[in-house]
Amino acid sequence: MDFTNLISKVQSVVNSESYSMASMAQNFSWLHRGVAEIFPQPHDADSETESLEKRLLNADRPLRIKLGIDPTGADIHLGHSIPVRKLRAFQDAGHTAVLIIGDFTARIGDPTGKSDVRRQLTETEVKQNAQTYLDQVRPILDFDTPGRLEVRYNSEWLSRLDLGKILELLSTMTVGQMLAKEGFAERYKKENPIFLHEFLYPLMQGFDSVAVESDVELGGTDQKFNIAVGRDLQRHFGLKPQFGLLLPILIGTDGVQKMSKSLGNYVGLSEHPSQKYQKLQGVPDNLLSQYFELLTDLPLESLPENPRDRQEFLAWEIVRQYHGEQAANEAREAAKSGGKEGALPEFSLAAIPDFPAKLAFILGATGLCKSTAEGKRKIQEGGVRIDGDKINDVDLIFSQPDDLYGKVLQVGKKNFVRLVK
Amino acid sequence: MDFTNLISKVQSVVNSESYSMASMAQNFSWLHRGVAEIFPQPHDADSETESLEKRLLNADRPLRIKLGIDPTGADIHLGHSIPVRKLRAFQDAGHTAVLIIGDFTARIGDPTGKSDVRRQLTETEVKQNAQTYLDQVRPILDFDTPGRLEVRYNSEWLSRLDLGKILELLSTMTVGQMLAKEGFAERYKKENPIFLHEFLYPLMQGFDSVAVESDVELGGTDQKFNIAVGRDLQRHFGLKPQFGLLLPILIGTDGVQKMSKSLGNYVGLSEHPSQKYQKLQGVPDNLLSQYFELLTDLPLESLPENPRDRQEFLAWEIVRQYHGEQAANEAREAAKSGGKEGALPEFSLAAIPDFPAKLAFILGATGLCKSTAEGKRKIQEGGVRIDGDKINDVDLIFSQPDDLYGKVLQVGKKNFVRLVK
Repeated sequence: MDFTNLISKVQSVVNSESYSMASMAQNFSWLHRGVAEIFPQPHDADSETESLEKRLLNADRPLRIKLGIDPTGADIHLGHSIPVRKLRAFQDAGHTAVLIIGDFTARIGDPTGKSDVRRQLTETEVKQNAQTYLDQVRPILDFDTPGRLEVRYNSEWLSRLDLGKILELLSTMTVGQMLAKEGFAERYKKENPIFLHEFLYPLMQGFDSVAVESDVELGGTDQKFNIAVGRDLQRHFGLKPQFGLLLPILIGTDGVQKMSKSLGNYVGLSEHPSQKYQKLQGVPDNLLSQYFELLTDLPLESLPENPRDRQEFLAWEIVRQYHGEQAANEAREAAKSGGKEGALPEFSLAAIPDFPAKLAFILGATGLCKSTAEGKRKIQEGGVRIDGDKINDVDLIFSQPDDLYGKVLQVGKKNFVRLVK
Repeated sequence: MDFTNLISKVQSVVNSESYSMASMAQNFSWLHRGVAEIFPQPHDADSETESLEKRLLNADRPLRIKLGIDPTGADIHLGHSIPVRKLRAFQDAGHTAVLIIGDFTARIGDPTGKSDVRRQLTETEVKQNAQTYLDQVRPILDFDTPGRLEVRYNSEWLSRLDLGKILELLSTMTVGQMLAKEGFAERYKKENPIFLHEFLYPLMQGFDSVAVESDVELGGTDQKFNIAVGRDLQRHFGLKPQFGLLLPILIGTDGVQKMSKSLGNYVGLSEHPSQKYQKLQGVPDNLLSQYFELLTDLPLESLPENPRDRQEFLAWEIVRQYHGEQAANEAREAAKSGGKEGALPEFSLAAIPDFPAKLAFILGATGLCKSTAEGKRKIQEGGVRIDGDKINDVDLIFSQPDDLYGKVLQVGKKNFVRLVK
């Protein structure tokens, strides 16, 4: 089938009566799509008789849907987008997304000083990372309808906790309960040290739910314990406990491990449309259904049957979500022509007279910036990325062109160059 | 041997050259007497090469000797007096006693609300209990020499801890280390719940050592873990770690279990001289040496050989410490005459016309107070005790005289009456 026909066929289903908001609202398909688990279920021993569906139907005010954000890393990928997309579905159903920036923990870092991952961030770094995060999820969330989005920093309440309150938080749980938590259990069994402060993190996340009075908390399947702690704390403090809505952890484009930057099997939200397209058109067969279910709103029953068509359609649809239909078409054309022509211009590093070379100089040489000085300024402003990674070091130097071959250099959201030999 | 001769013989040894402060200072007999353990010892793996003795000899300022006090109970007994007596020995050697009133925990109570022992106290109750404590240890400690006593309330620093600092405290220990603590280990093994906030208490006690910069902490042998935590925290915060000086737990007058009010095998510091004498002259043989060592400063080698003489001498000496020589002699006379005559007057409850009877009324009837109204006021002021237990209930009623037979009713520090048939 011709690709344009394919698109219009799917779009006609999307526009049909059975796929309307009203219909989806009635059967809660918007709620259940791609969800791994909603808890408590009415038959769970500790639960209220109410189900989340009932709570939604009976709500006389917008419900408050919590999603916690870790502001230690700036760049996010399609795996991170899954709970954000579900948050958008709640927004569209009239509810309030409450994004919680976990700035308190980021400001403290790892108190043992042993973890590089948990290095202490300054207030400015946290704010910058949070802003970068918000910029990246802007295409997903509804930022504009009044009352649909609340962004909170948890230092607002966590910095005010005193020892009395913290003893109270801790007293709601036993050592046995905490050691039953996935992660802790194995480490304790293997006699790997668990530091006592680690027991406070689930309670801090739980207390966030108390502070914002959330009705539902979204998270990956690995968040069940923490979300349940939030329920217990809300009950302890006299609030109605939240529901937990768990979403699957996305498998990366390698089809094997979970999507992760460090494994290189990711598609970053700030990547160039052509990069996204190229990565996504290679997603293995066995993952296609899950990707469609979790990363698009398309009706799964009307998708093309041919695997190659499905890959292309997935790539096209996701690029369309983040960059619009024109960019999606261009990225597709570029991929068709073998990447030789199209949306991603190339720059030959042979044109750089001398290595080692400063990144700021290279930015000027590629034409992405007007001069080395502008290159420096753009780095300072946090606008420069290499393969989607934000660069913070104004004086970054590359000792040889080998370190850059094949990488994509980016300034702002729309200017990209692929560095080649 | 005649008792008066006995006393003068022992006193001549006390006054001799070999028993002088100078001599004791040199051989540190004042330090080692009755001590179960001093740690670290120079040969311990984690220790400085310095010993406590060296630290004392080389000190160019008075050392700070910490003893923590739990202000939840008002009345203390001879078992509690042991570390206080050691504190006095440090004072006499020129050092500073730092008494820490644990008001912070007492003000919070048990956050689970499950423990009656740990009920939440008001600020006034804590202050009253602390004052009662200080009144009782006044005969032991040097309150008068400038710079020898510092009384601190730990809410001063604990109430100022924020979550960041508390995470830091917690991060200095692992779950495994904490579960190795006596008490926790057995409970965890037996699957008895250990609540998470219980892990904070040793760290709070340890942080007290940081806050007051103690050089030595005194405690019972059950305090080794907590004192060691204090050492670790001091090191963490860049201070020289304290020494721990552990004292034995006193066996009660039954010769079997540790001295405890609830077991009835105790001698209270606020009891009448005659009560003290009577209880102490019955201390079993096998405990006499330990009682002399821990509760008196007498030279152990010059004590009478005859067990009966030793019992009487112990009773006399301890009453002398708390009430002076005359009271000790009177208490001895009273005991000799079978309690029939002597220091403790009796009141026959047959003189009370009607039961149930209010305690305030009985106070008036016995002549301890001028009227029922004064009886009420004295209870309100915290000045009334039955068998050494402070009475707080102004409206306390006894339904039958049986509940009072044989008990000692007390108003203030000096007015006692034994209630008889």
